[in-house]
Amino acid sequence: MAEPLKVALLGCGVVGSAVARQLTEDADDLAARVGAPLELVGVAVRDLDKPRPESGVPTELFTTDAEDLVTRADLVIELMGGLEPARSLLLRAIEHGAGVVTANKALLGADGPTLYAAADARGVDLSFEASVAGAIPLLRPLRESLAGDDVQRVMGIVNGTTNFILDKMDRTGAALSEVLAEAQELGYAEADPTADVEGYDAQAKAAILASLAFHTRVATSDVHCEGIMGVTAEDIRDARKIGCVVKLLAICDRSADGVSARVHPTLVPRSHPLATVHGAFNAVFLDTALAGELMFYGQGAGARPTASAVLGDLVQAARHRVDGGHGPRESAYAHLPILPIASTHTSYFIRLDVLDRPGVLARVANVFGEHEVSIESMRQGVRRTEDGLALLQLVTHQATDAALAATVEGLRKLDDVHDVSSVLRAEGL
Amino acid sequence: MAEPLKVALLGCGVVGSAVARQLTEDADDLAARVGAPLELVGVAVRDLDKPRPESGVPTELFTTDAEDLVTRADLVIELMGGLEPARSLLLRAIEHGAGVVTANKALLGADGPTLYAAADARGVDLSFEASVAGAIPLLRPLRESLAGDDVQRVMGIVNGTTNFILDKMDRTGAALSEVLAEAQELGYAEADPTADVEGYDAQAKAAILASLAFHTRVATSDVHCEGIMGVTAEDIRDARKIGCVVKLLAICDRSADGVSARVHPTLVPRSHPLATVHGAFNAVFLDTALAGELMFYGQGAGARPTASAVLGDLVQAARHRVDGGHGPRESAYAHLPILPIASTHTSYFIRLDVLDRPGVLARVANVFGEHEVSIESMRQGVRRTEDGLALLQLVTHQATDAALAATVEGLRKLDDVHDVSSVLRAEGL
Repeated sequence: MAEPLKVALLGCGVVGSAVARQLTEDADDLAARVGAPLELVGVAVRDLDKPRPESGVPTELFTTDAEDLVTRADLVIELMGGLEPARSLLLRAIEHGAGVVTANKALLGADGPTLYAAADARGVDLSFEASVAGAIPLLRPLRESLAGDDVQRVMGIVNGTTNFILDKMDRTGAALSEVLAEAQELGYAEADPTADVEGYDAQAKAAILASLAFHTRVATSDVHCEGIMGVTAEDIRDARKIGCVVKLLAICDRSADGVSARVHPTLVPRSHPLATVHGAFNAVFLDTALAGELMFYGQGAGARPTASAVLGDLVQAARHRVDGGHGPRESAYAHLPILPIASTHTSYFIRLDVLDRPGVLARVANVFGEHEVSIESMRQGVRRTEDGLALLQLVTHQATDAALAATVEGLRKLDDVHDVSSVLRAEGL
Repeated sequence: MAEPLKVALLGCGVVGSAVARQLTEDADDLAARVGAPLELVGVAVRDLDKPRPESGVPTELFTTDAEDLVTRADLVIELMGGLEPARSLLLRAIEHGAGVVTANKALLGADGPTLYAAADARGVDLSFEASVAGAIPLLRPLRESLAGDDVQRVMGIVNGTTNFILDKMDRTGAALSEVLAEAQELGYAEADPTADVEGYDAQAKAAILASLAFHTRVATSDVHCEGIMGVTAEDIRDARKIGCVVKLLAICDRSADGVSARVHPTLVPRSHPLATVHGAFNAVFLDTALAGELMFYGQGAGARPTASAVLGDLVQAARHRVDGGHGPRESAYAHLPILPIASTHTSYFIRLDVLDRPGVLARVANVFGEHEVSIESMRQGVRRTEDGLALLQLVTHQATDAALAATVEGLRKLDDVHDVSSVLRAEGL
């Protein structure tokens, strides 16, 4: 058994507490797996007076001096979140030769390359399994297991809060506002749910996934993002009528022209594996050149699941301290162009209120034809609105998002069209 | 970019050919991901005259002298299968300091510790992702991503041939012999299907999975194994009636007393994720202390999927040659006792032909009571056999396998019982 390795923890919220507790309770197993004991030498917090009994950390280990703490550790776990001071502290830790583990998707999505460059230069681990899809081993498989394959597509449910909401809407027919309030009561949604419902959380995760999958730097700002606030009970019902569910998906694609990453509510056929992911669970579907279709499923959040991912990274980084070497470096050699949403290929579900008069279908169809968008199916809604309006629901074949957007624009200009009340992208139809 | 790394390939069947082809076709990407070119220096085969155009390997690289070849390489890929000469060649390669990648489940299940000891002593990679569940990143997640967690259970479909057969029987109602013949025609089953249908393939995989999951040496011979040849069309129909499918599962459990690993046909509720795995696909379900439930899904066999796993391992081993360090060592520190099948907890589905006379149900129930096995449900079959026999189907609650076996033994001795025509274990009911 080698000398003990000093571990510093930055942040002691629910995940940090679970990690700290595990470091104590599972110390013998962790030492045996690493080949050296892991010794928690300090926990940086903002408020020393806040009691944290669930962490099991002795009072004297808490400190407000994170800057000093990171220079005293072989391994640093960052669970503070946010850009600063997390970035400066991680860079300082790396500079002092520590392997670092972080769950900070915001920081990685905004400025991953800076961290990578520092870690690569110093030859230390930078790992962040917990930043995407919580407990699911996904980033290590992408960085290592699939390093000899070519990933064509990553498509996944990477935000549990929105999946809980959309799943509940699907099962109960309730409105989003109602289900969101319930999710907040149950603790599945934050008091300020913006990051989840607007898709920002999934957006940062999509950037991380696309970067790893395509060996190309993709930042959060490169990811097209639409949240779920516009999804109505009627959308969910319409989806159900055509055998689909609505999911907030992160979709990263590689084509001959480049790569794209986007987050938006998406119609998915009920027969698709992702459609069967319920509640707050996460699942990510990969399509690769050699392995073909792969799916990973598990809990995307929660203190203990996230701690599992953090500790897995920690054990690996610790093994490297004992045995030499380090985890994979940044792999961004491909430098593939990042395509705007306008040029990505998708299909649309469109719901229209149209005037119920002769020739209207032909004129609607004509707008699609003008933009070279082909209609996959069209149905007239059973419910007719008042004032002589009829309901039309259309699903298109795949086309560029630009052509589809122009089609919707054209439909809105048509005299026969009273309203385009829903536009949702669809996958796997 | 570092100096080229010399790669030797042992075996050039369908997987070997796919790996060789990929090494050439994807050379630039692989070099960029490793930080050094990978140069194929030789392919060991038994028969130099057999044409292998699909491998794309120049004739001069083929050799029958595998013993020499492994001493000339930095990285050795073993795809010959079988115990010898694969073991000797891998040990020789390790001795010469090469990192080794193998898909040889038979060898690992029979004598993994010998390979580990050699690799650990020499500080080189020993990786074998392709040996279990083909393309699915599963072993690296177990060895690395979940190294800070405690796996309680591994339960999976790890043999595509038997899943194809059982799935087809479920969908068509056909007999096993009929479906097996079709599977052989389609190439899903070998001409000699023994290793698959008798469960031996899954048995070796279960040993590998249990070893990694529980940090304890589990050999193939420690795994209780029953194949699918006894599964009848009637079993499948009965399973369907109680909302189940029959799957050949590898089940590795950790309890307070120790660990167990077994392979047998198993009733699984249709609502369980493993029930939805169709055709030749594989899926593995994990239950861990921190992460909770995880599932991995993908192709378990095939040249290109298996090549994906081999190449992933190869890239990692190559990165270690460039950057230093090596993959995880053997982790068998826990030395947990291996429990015999008799002491593992399972539940049973039992079908009986009983004499249709007063008091029979009470006497049958009494046998269960004597062995302290609790009946979960009992139904009288709609079909009555000739000669005054009635059909009884029972599902038990969990009990030790010994108690269940003794119960079945007791039932067979009962005068009222004409035949115990089916006994199947069940999970997740």
